[in-house]
Amino acid sequence: MAQVCKNYGQRVQLSLFECRVTLAQLEDLEAKLLKIMDLEKDSLRIYVLYGGREKSLRAHGKDRYTDFDEPLIL
Amino acid sequence: MAQVCKNYGQRVQLSLFECRVTLAQLEDLEAKLLKIMDLEKDSLRIYVLYGGREKSLRAHGKDRYTDFDEPLIL
Repeated sequence: MAQVCKNYGQRVQLSLFECRVTLAQLEDLEAKLLKIMDLEKDSLRIYVLYGGREKSLRAHGKDRYTDFDEPLIL
Repeated sequence: MAQVCKNYGQRVQLSLFECRVTLAQLEDLEAKLLKIMDLEKDSLRIYVLYGGREKSLRAHGKDRYTDFDEPLIL
């Protein structure tokens, strides 16, 4: 499941991905995940952040997220 | 950190809790977590679900959540 999620967003914790997607991309991602997951064993929770990430998220401590909208300093 | 979160909501995955709280309770929870976490090692991400859980969440597969607003059948 992680491999599929990586194509749509960034891993921010072990089993947590943040994906900036359109509704169509979300439906596509959800369909792909449902095809490969084991409904008896796996647990998938998709939270749609109405109002966007900036408004919803409060992040503290170690942060793996890279904001590609900001200038990247290498 | 898990012990603190358990007082405010339910664990739905290994490192994921869902908490139905007021804004004041959220500030309280966040302050408690910040007091005990190691900012260098730990990662805390709080997502405020504007519009509520029912609108935001798409859950599939194994689901540990118990809806205490619904009748409990034991």
